Amino acid sequence: MPISLRINAARLQHHLDELARIGALATGGVCRLAFSAEDKQGRDYIEARMRTLGLTVRIDRIGNILGTRRGARTGPLVLTGSHVDTVGTAGRFDGSLGVIGALEAIETLNDANVSTGRPIGVMAFANEEGARFVPDMMGSLVFRGDLRVDDARRRLDREGVSVGEAIDRTGYAGTDDLADVAVRAYVELHIEQGPILENANTGIGVVEAVQGLTWITFTLTGATAHAGATPIDMRRDAGYVAAAIVQYARTLSHEIESQRATVGSLSLSPNIVNVVAERATLTVDLRNPDADRLAMAEERLHRFVADTAAAERVTVSHTTDVRVPPVRFDPVVVSHVQNAATALGYRSMRMVSGAGHDAQILAAKFPAAMIFVPSRGGISHNVTEFTSTSDLEAGANVLLHSLLALSG
Amino acid sequence: MPISLRINAARLQHHLDELARIGALATGGVCRLAFSAEDKQGRDYIEARMRTLGLTVRIDRIGNILGTRRGARTGPLVLTGSHVDTVGTAGRFDGSLGVIGALEAIETLNDANVSTGRPIGVMAFANEEGARFVPDMMGSLVFRGDLRVDDARRRLDREGVSVGEAIDRTGYAGTDDLADVAVRAYVELHIEQGPILENANTGIGVVEAVQGLTWITFTLTGATAHAGATPIDMRRDAGYVAAAIVQYARTLSHEIESQRATVGSLSLSPNIVNVVAERATLTVDLRNPDADRLAMAEERLHRFVADTAAAERVTVSHTTDVRVPPVRFDPVVVSHVQNAATALGYRSMRMVSGAGHDAQILAAKFPAAMIFVPSRGGISHNVTEFTSTSDLEAGANVLLHSLLALSG
Repeated sequence: MPISLRINAARLQHHLDELARIGALATGGVCRLAFSAEDKQGRDYIEARMRTLGLTVRIDRIGNILGTRRGARTGPLVLTGSHVDTVGTAGRFDGSLGVIGALEAIETLNDANVSTGRPIGVMAFANEEGARFVPDMMGSLVFRGDLRVDDARRRLDREGVSVGEAIDRTGYAGTDDLADVAVRAYVELHIEQGPILENANTGIGVVEAVQGLTWITFTLTGATAHAGATPIDMRRDAGYVAAAIVQYARTLSHEIESQRATVGSLSLSPNIVNVVAERATLTVDLRNPDADRLAMAEERLHRFVADTAAAERVTVSHTTDVRVPPVRFDPVVVSHVQNAATALGYRSMRMVSGAGHDAQILAAKFPAAMIFVPSRGGISHNVTEFTSTSDLEAGANVLLHSLLALSG
Repeated sequence: MPISLRINAARLQHHLDELARIGALATGGVCRLAFSAEDKQGRDYIEARMRTLGLTVRIDRIGNILGTRRGARTGPLVLTGSHVDTVGTAGRFDGSLGVIGALEAIETLNDANVSTGRPIGVMAFANEEGARFVPDMMGSLVFRGDLRVDDARRRLDREGVSVGEAIDRTGYAGTDDLADVAVRAYVELHIEQGPILENANTGIGVVEAVQGLTWITFTLTGATAHAGATPIDMRRDAGYVAAAIVQYARTLSHEIESQRATVGSLSLSPNIVNVVAERATLTVDLRNPDADRLAMAEERLHRFVADTAAAERVTVSHTTDVRVPPVRFDPVVVSHVQNAATALGYRSMRMVSGAGHDAQILAAKFPAAMIFVPSRGGISHNVTEFTSTSDLEAGANVLLHSLLALSG
């Protein structure tokens, strides 16, 4: 395994730039919502590139594209990839890097006439973002067999268009079901989408786990009251309770190890300067890489909300909108990533993914791990998302050598 | 002065019911926004009733209606009244009670052939609510000479219609300027719009003062960040700072005597479950009957906001939208109200008005006070606003005897 092998940074950057022209926004970012015309163009670009590189291309009924490079042996393949669909006002790297970076690794192997023992597959998963159609990571869920294609096709966007209609309209889906694809290991290159690597001045994140996630929506109902005429102790202020929950989220983050708790959405009604809020709706996003701690955070949160609301004579209802268990990546795949980073001389650190990725879906069935590169300012899902060419290059080199190690 | 004299409760209730039919909402409340067709109909009803009662009617250029009952002497009159314009989804009592109650007192005097030393004036002030055109208490500001009619006429509603256009369209305004009207004292009957009297099981509030008021809008700017991928200590969470301010408003209310602080309006941006809020906008409504304490609350609030925002690396800007100084009512007028309530055998209590009223505008120029009656559940500016007939009756009787005492 020639450790001297390196990807071509200029070529990597070129193909990222080309892909970013598809669905380009005037503001500098991109919009390729799942199953839209732009998403199809993005996937066409990937499919064309796979064929140029001599990969065998298969497309399944949800639109996942698999390009396979033959190995010396047949049998289970070493899989890599990510997605090329985006959120509505996205940057140029989230998802795209994992697919373009994988194809760059393939081209590097082709150019150097390196043959691997096992075949290598590059996957562009459909609808990872879930920005238009839920659930997110739809393609990987279908690939893993946890979501039936026919069920996925019935999901609707806000305009009432179904996944099936959208797929049929763009004419993208294949007829394959990829049921015969055996996977030896999965490794995914992705931008961090957080500030940890940048703050640690470290180019490579060796991702050992993905946090578990719970999303809860609370609806608090008190009573409207005149802000001037109503003494504080006679109020039933839904906004006050909502604010206490925002503060408590911060407390939870400090009290429970590795806990993150965020209130990103909060609305008051009637939302008038001199009227005590009758109703407040807010969401709490809880994350922890440890399932027990995540459950503890959830339990403490509910107890706090119940107690605080009761003290203010405010009633509470809630819905648990999402609950995703934490994922531990495979130690062997993780060590291959770590070894590659070390052998290449890159500064690296072990870390936990804060965001969700296709890799966490696949990890339940196949040995998996991820490689992170820095996101400037931790910014993602935003047109200003940025990773430097040298960081992209380092990530793709680590991917290349992880694939080489895994494919033998 | 015959203390046996009593208003007619059935007649009072009848005229309140009749007025409530004008601009009636299907939900049970009323909508007579200032200078609308419904507001004009309401004022026509009042003008007609004044003429029926033999009052001399004068209407000024902003639409204030003054009906005067002759006294034994000429010279300064004892003034009472309130307003008949309403907010968009109003109850049947706010404002209307003060005008209908005053006319009921006049009719009671007429029926009993009581003549007073001083003339008594009943005023229906224009646009007290300010729900359509700011400033609120527009009619009393014009009457007191603090707002020029021509300036008031230029104010626009949200559709860009000016006060002048609206007045001219309804054909309501008179040509008078009421500049020659000398006022001996002003007393206003009004519903409390808060829960204090109901909670104290007391029928009459002897209002000694009106709280001062400051409205501040804060805009907080932090940075969006991924809720999963961004460690807590790397966040610049505008929503967290906003929630801390909501909590601190409660703290201020406890720490400073007679202080009320309310955040009724709060909005986050982008307001998404898994995105740390980049921007938060919130209002703080501060009230205190003491000017120094109100200033102290404002100062402490600004210090807290600056410190909390700085700790989170969030920037702050603010606008002070309204600042109304507290008003102390005239001790002599207040004592006349107190004496009337006591002589009539009603349970009463001294109190401070939490809401703003025409009386506070007039108090800067004339001796003034107010009489409050209970609002069920403290609810006001709402179609469910309610005061029982017996409480309305008590309030009108206290008004009648206060007017008798003041007019000699």
